Amino acid sequence: MSEGSRPGRVIALCGGVGGAKLAMGLYRILGEKLTIVVNTGDDFEHLGLCVSPDIDTVLYTLSGLANRELGWGRGDETWNFMEAVAVLGAETWFRLGDRDLALHVERTRRLKAGHSLSEIVRDFAKSLGVTAEIVPMSDDPVRTMVVTSEGTLPFQRYFVERRCVPKVERIFFEGAELARPNPALREALADPNLAAIILCPSNPFLSIDPLLSIPGLATLLRQAAVPLVAVSPIIGGKAVKGPTSKIMSELGLAANTQAIADHYAGLLDGLVVDETDRAESASLALPVRVTATLMTSDADRERLARDVLDFASQLAGRRA
Amino acid sequence: MSEGSRPGRVIALCGGVGGAKLAMGLYRILGEKLTIVVNTGDDFEHLGLCVSPDIDTVLYTLSGLANRELGWGRGDETWNFMEAVAVLGAETWFRLGDRDLALHVERTRRLKAGHSLSEIVRDFAKSLGVTAEIVPMSDDPVRTMVVTSEGTLPFQRYFVERRCVPKVERIFFEGAELARPNPALREALADPNLAAIILCPSNPFLSIDPLLSIPGLATLLRQAAVPLVAVSPIIGGKAVKGPTSKIMSELGLAANTQAIADHYAGLLDGLVVDETDRAESASLALPVRVTATLMTSDADRERLARDVLDFASQLAGRRA
Repeated sequence: MSEGSRPGRVIALCGGVGGAKLAMGLYRILGEKLTIVVNTGDDFEHLGLCVSPDIDTVLYTLSGLANRELGWGRGDETWNFMEAVAVLGAETWFRLGDRDLALHVERTRRLKAGHSLSEIVRDFAKSLGVTAEIVPMSDDPVRTMVVTSEGTLPFQRYFVERRCVPKVERIFFEGAELARPNPALREALADPNLAAIILCPSNPFLSIDPLLSIPGLATLLRQAAVPLVAVSPIIGGKAVKGPTSKIMSELGLAANTQAIADHYAGLLDGLVVDETDRAESASLALPVRVTATLMTSDADRERLARDVLDFASQLAGRRA
Repeated sequence: MSEGSRPGRVIALCGGVGGAKLAMGLYRILGEKLTIVVNTGDDFEHLGLCVSPDIDTVLYTLSGLANRELGWGRGDETWNFMEAVAVLGAETWFRLGDRDLALHVERTRRLKAGHSLSEIVRDFAKSLGVTAEIVPMSDDPVRTMVVTSEGTLPFQRYFVERRCVPKVERIFFEGAELARPNPALREALADPNLAAIILCPSNPFLSIDPLLSIPGLATLLRQAAVPLVAVSPIIGGKAVKGPTSKIMSELGLAANTQAIADHYAGLLDGLVVDETDRAESASLALPVRVTATLMTSDADRERLARDVLDFASQLAGRRA
């Protein structure tokens, strides 16, 4: 794909907030030619409802409903359910907004009726007017578990209830060994118009590793005939948001682009790094695109998406 | 129990709105000495959530949270969930308010976790500050089914979705033959301080018959050593609210106090009828108390409750 030509299909892999921002930029350029494969390792049952935080963040971000201040949930939200359920003594550490509840109640109903998460998410996207293909990484349950100084915690207990305070010792993905990649990913990879695969700037350990833990998924990505490009979530030794740098330090890793490149070694054809990390990136053993990776506006998102697509196109040219 | 003495325990049987009003009047007098056995034949699953309309009406009425205009749900309600779930294409004929959802979500979670409806309702009452004992008629599922000119409809489809328009041919109670009376009713009946049993002015066919359809329940009531008194839901040939008179006419019955007395024949020790029906009540073959039975204010509710308790006390005196 060269600049100015009609872009082909692009597959983006992402988690929640940070990744969804780039997915939004890509969506503004690609529309229905974008396939977003989303982490479901954060999924859990709360108050008896099936919650898929990363999928919902992507749905809300692409439909324009997202709460930009909070980084999760909907912008136009009220909290009367939470208030009433608290009176009944229910757990309130994970907050479900009144409007947001619609996704959880309807998802729970349909999952219990035997529908797959993929079907449900496809219908949700259609109802919310999102034309990109949003694909759960797998329809089989994979659960991100965080081994910490306070014991082993399911992801949301670690992330939301304990606010990432416990020291991370190890992360594993329960159920991953039995999970199968979503067939929609295989189909997208077989699209003759496929142009690029992009790892969004999500937390590599908590948001991208769950996808890569699914047997065969990384191999499928590696075998694709198009460039695979990641955007580093690190800017000047820090993550923009969330616990990436804290976790990297607890895992004995430097929070820098080198560590990100090492983590994805053997998978990537190129890495997009922030201008702040230009000097450091010179020593990386793979092609690098240096650009501004901080996304605060929709214009930022779209500009970064264009840079990433251009970089991938350039790498494809080099390959051919 | 004579006027002025401390009242003993009272058991009230009721359905939704009309019955709950008298239950409220009794509660103002009796507090924790009131046991309310509530119809669960209206219970159903909606949007995957377990809804118990009559129990919730009693909970909301006694806790002061009820919506007095609508006659169902909470007064301080918002509808953002309904709006959002409608966008997803979910059924919206039965409206669940944002605050009201708390009961349904928490009840569903606990039922699926194996708790009994009785335990759940007991905890809900406690959380809402209600000291009366609110008891589902049974923890076994009984479902009121309405055979109509448009086929057999589950109660809520008939009542809410079809607004009682289809002509009623017959009513039956699915699962009743296998249901057991709530053990809490047996315990309340064994209370040495039991003073009276009251059938609230709920729809006899839709709200009280489900209770009486449970094998052994009517016999338990009949065997009690205290007066069993009903309040007629008919005032001057019409029900105050709801489809009682329409249904009675469709079932070939006159909508009058005689038909109510006939329907409960063999069960009642006395019937409370409205002043409007004084002339007609003279020919009834059982003791009658004539009073104003319309309840528009809390004062009305309490006054009618006092009348009913006094009537029961008088009947008990006659027995002794």
